[in-house]
Amino acid sequence: MEVNGHPYRAVWMEEGLLCMIDQRVLPFSFEVFRCSDYRLSCEAIRNMTVRGAGTIGATAGYAMAQAAMEADITPEGFTRARREIEACRPTARDLFYATERVYHAAAGLLAAGKLEEAARLASEAATEIADNYVAHAYQIGAHGSQLISDGSNILTHCNAGWLALVDHGSALSPVFMAHREGKKIHVWVDETRPRNQGAKLTAWELSRAGIPHTIIADNAAAWMMARGQVDLLITGADRIAANGDVANKIGTLEKAIAAKAFNLPFYVAAPLSTFDRNCPDGYSIPVEERDPEELTSMNGINLQGTSQEFRTANPGSAAYNPAFDITQAKYVTAYICESGVHNSISGLHKRITAEKSEETGM
Amino acid sequence: MEVNGHPYRAVWMEEGLLCMIDQRVLPFSFEVFRCSDYRLSCEAIRNMTVRGAGTIGATAGYAMAQAAMEADITPEGFTRARREIEACRPTARDLFYATERVYHAAAGLLAAGKLEEAARLASEAATEIADNYVAHAYQIGAHGSQLISDGSNILTHCNAGWLALVDHGSALSPVFMAHREGKKIHVWVDETRPRNQGAKLTAWELSRAGIPHTIIADNAAAWMMARGQVDLLITGADRIAANGDVANKIGTLEKAIAAKAFNLPFYVAAPLSTFDRNCPDGYSIPVEERDPEELTSMNGINLQGTSQEFRTANPGSAAYNPAFDITQAKYVTAYICESGVHNSISGLHKRITAEKSEETGM
Repeated sequence: MEVNGHPYRAVWMEEGLLCMIDQRVLPFSFEVFRCSDYRLSCEAIRNMTVRGAGTIGATAGYAMAQAAMEADITPEGFTRARREIEACRPTARDLFYATERVYHAAAGLLAAGKLEEAARLASEAATEIADNYVAHAYQIGAHGSQLISDGSNILTHCNAGWLALVDHGSALSPVFMAHREGKKIHVWVDETRPRNQGAKLTAWELSRAGIPHTIIADNAAAWMMARGQVDLLITGADRIAANGDVANKIGTLEKAIAAKAFNLPFYVAAPLSTFDRNCPDGYSIPVEERDPEELTSMNGINLQGTSQEFRTANPGSAAYNPAFDITQAKYVTAYICESGVHNSISGLHKRITAEKSEETGM
Repeated sequence: MEVNGHPYRAVWMEEGLLCMIDQRVLPFSFEVFRCSDYRLSCEAIRNMTVRGAGTIGATAGYAMAQAAMEADITPEGFTRARREIEACRPTARDLFYATERVYHAAAGLLAAGKLEEAARLASEAATEIADNYVAHAYQIGAHGSQLISDGSNILTHCNAGWLALVDHGSALSPVFMAHREGKKIHVWVDETRPRNQGAKLTAWELSRAGIPHTIIADNAAAWMMARGQVDLLITGADRIAANGDVANKIGTLEKAIAAKAFNLPFYVAAPLSTFDRNCPDGYSIPVEERDPEELTSMNGINLQGTSQEFRTANPGSAAYNPAFDITQAKYVTAYICESGVHNSISGLHKRITAEKSEETGM
């Protein structure tokens, strides 16, 4: 997407440095953060300089390539790097998808002492992963926009825009596409506590694209539905289990339950790389628990424009901060993927199987 | 309730001044705000120095008494004062309940030129309203605590504690009572965006009472229910329609829908003064819309301990801030009132009718 007239991805390689838009300082500041080695890239995933399932995946792929390119890399060091990268965040399936792909592209060559070739193939694999995300995100937009009518009011939770999937986005890609097709649409943007990715990132993306939108408290989503002011909901996903259960940003479950109560379609948009056949159901997905301080204090800018931390809760009270929740498949109307709109998880599985055999054949 | 060893109500009259605990600065500072005339008391209701249905009611009653006590008060001026007070906030039924009662206690005497007697009776009526809230809140606690078992995990939304109902509270009164009875309980405290009454006020009240509690993002409530970590939900109410629909803090609807999805009891605790027989259903209740800035900027203390406003959303994005939502009666398991626990609105109506005839007979 264009920012200040320049096309950007959320993450990219440039002259040996892994570059990423710093999502911690948006929307108050637009900054590019650069990581010179995979350890710094790990830290950027952990502290949420980058976030969003696909962008985490692409960053993890590039971080693997950075490890493979280290002058003194050994097969053991490469395996260790993989484990370190995979330990950064537990829920996003794409992280593991990406590390696995780059590992298999280079590990054999490394073991055979072909360091230069290993580095080249790791780098190519990482680039391919990122490029695929962009292509798949675009296809998600093309398929998903068919679900959006002229005049639609769309509700989305968290940020599943281009910042979250290298480019275009998952949940927002159909929105961008519908807007480009000339449909008049409006988006209700859940604030998305505790980190405000909706109010900060989704609102910023929609503003730049000139798409009418309104920020609401997470608490207001069901009330907007009750009043007939929502036509459909679209969210992204961090991991989708074999039975179709969806791990996504905390609060997704509440929106999905409310959507069902008001007979509204609830769509989950995600590339096939987010589907995890090794997780039988949502309750097998590890749900990350983050620092309670994220909830009891907030980052914002004061009236003088200075970024600061603020306390917003009773000092001394305990807080609990699960980052994701699990939405059971029964609440999902359809999955929007690069392969199309799938009304059932079983139909979609055939596609994943096809994709998987293609992958194994590589 | 005791604060620093001194018993407090949320609002009280003292030497001609209307005194109230300033709920805008809690939990970071404990301050008493004093209003010398009814216009200042109106401003205190509007800007949420005081809040919570019953506390708004008591404040409105006292403000009416302040108007009746003005040296140059006329019958027209008294009617005008009533309208001004009623215009402060539109949703809380108790505000109108209180103004009506004090008006009828004094208007006739004022019209007959008996100014001193009018002032005295207005003041007595206002005091009686506040005293009744305290008595009713206590009874709500006694009835409601029977719904709480040893070991219960209770989820509450917003603040319906003693700050919100002069003393004891509505939703929290059963919690305080269960704790005093020696039951081991734990409370999940919804943060309650956009004004954080949960994280700021409910957490503060529970801390002072020594009741174990944990603040969660509003988004996490359904996930706590899905994981079996909630046994029952209790909220307060700002107005309850004739058919049992409940107006309460925005987000209540989402919690109620989620509770039904997970087969958990959802209780609404409120004094009978909160029931409005003139509203046939929830959609007839006026829902206050507040300044969107409440959502896009927040008040907190910075790390130096200074209270400040700060931005937490994309500058330039629109925001929408309904303060309440309507929970349909079908989601309410029972109403906890001073008269008992009512499993149906029809059973409760008989009680209101009795209460009403008693009132008319005064």
